[in-house]
Amino acid sequence: MSERPFTRLDPSGPPGPITSRCVVHDRIAYIGGLVAADLSADTAGQTREVLERVDAYLRRVGSDRDHILTVQVWLADMRRFAEMNEVWNAWVGDGPPPARACVGGELFRRDAAVEIMVTAAVP
Amino acid sequence: MSERPFTRLDPSGPPGPITSRCVVHDRIAYIGGLVAADLSADTAGQTREVLERVDAYLRRVGSDRDHILTVQVWLADMRRFAEMNEVWNAWVGDGPPPARACVGGELFRRDAAVEIMVTAAVP
Amino acid sequence: MSERPFTRLDPSGPPGPITSRCVVHDRIAYIGGLVAADLSADTAGQTREVLERVDAYLRRVGSDRDHILTVQVWLADMRRFAEMNEVWNAWVGDGPPPARACVGGELFRRDAAVEIMVTAAVP
Repeated sequence: MSERPFTRLDPSGPPGPITSRCVVHDRIAYIGGLVAADLSADTAGQTREVLERVDAYLRRVGSDRDHILTVQVWLADMRRFAEMNEVWNAWVGDGPPPARACVGGELFRRDAAVEIMVTAAVP
Repeated sequence: MSERPFTRLDPSGPPGPITSRCVVHDRIAYIGGLVAADLSADTAGQTREVLERVDAYLRRVGSDRDHILTVQVWLADMRRFAEMNEVWNAWVGDGPPPARACVGGELFRRDAAVEIMVTAAVP
Repeated sequence: MSERPFTRLDPSGPPGPITSRCVVHDRIAYIGGLVAADLSADTAGQTREVLERVDAYLRRVGSDRDHILTVQVWLADMRRFAEMNEVWNAWVGDGPPPARACVGGELFRRDAAVEIMVTAAVP
């Protein structure tokens, strides 16, 4: 069998981590842990920004939120769950819901409220 | 190439998160973070219930525990590791063991002791 | 369609968890959460050892670090992020960077500083 090609989007680099924001291989997109750029926003605002970035990456690789397989959500403060989740529910809306796990965990950026990792099928 | 169909089981909804408990695509099943329904049970009891639910989802999609690829376990209290793991070991038994990671993390439900996310091949 | 075979490396067993360190299925390798064997090393040293073990597993299954899809990093103490990340950046080097998430979380072994889980394509 021949090797399937990789697509890698938006490499980040030193002094931060050398990572790709999104890797696509064999019709699956893997979006690395995203946090908001505007960390002055509250949990709802940060969640909204991160999900917009998820949309943008999926669009760039020819997928969309209806093709998401799994989502991992990390919250810096689990007491903010309802605020994150209200934005999530509006975002999923009437579309097909993905599998998700949400747990608390310390995030690298001190003001980051939420970090999200996604895998999606590329149709 | 034609698009591969999705199967999504047991959507949950507001006021909780809009998610699917299990998504199947291209012969891989993705089971979202499961916690026990009976949160009055201890760590062992909750683990047992969650693993029974994993079995049930795998059965519904035509797979089984021998086809699991990866498992993520989150423990609300890492001091309960041995109790969770004793149930895990009995559950895996003589079957082929999956890859697993287990870390501590705050869970959404205050009395939840363990949350488990699974990916499995569908033969 | 015929069933695709599994490869499972280095099963661990009681009294610890019954797991495989690495599962390969359908040209994807899933490496379970690895911690260093030498827990007397500092965060940088443990990260180095874990990434060497990742290299070794990938080599055994016919893959390599240029084929990694996703990495999850858990740090016992997020204040050690820079030390872990410096080793990470040197390890990725000029190669294609994978998608990654890094969060804080309590690890099972008291002296473990870092745990890493990897998925990679097998060419």
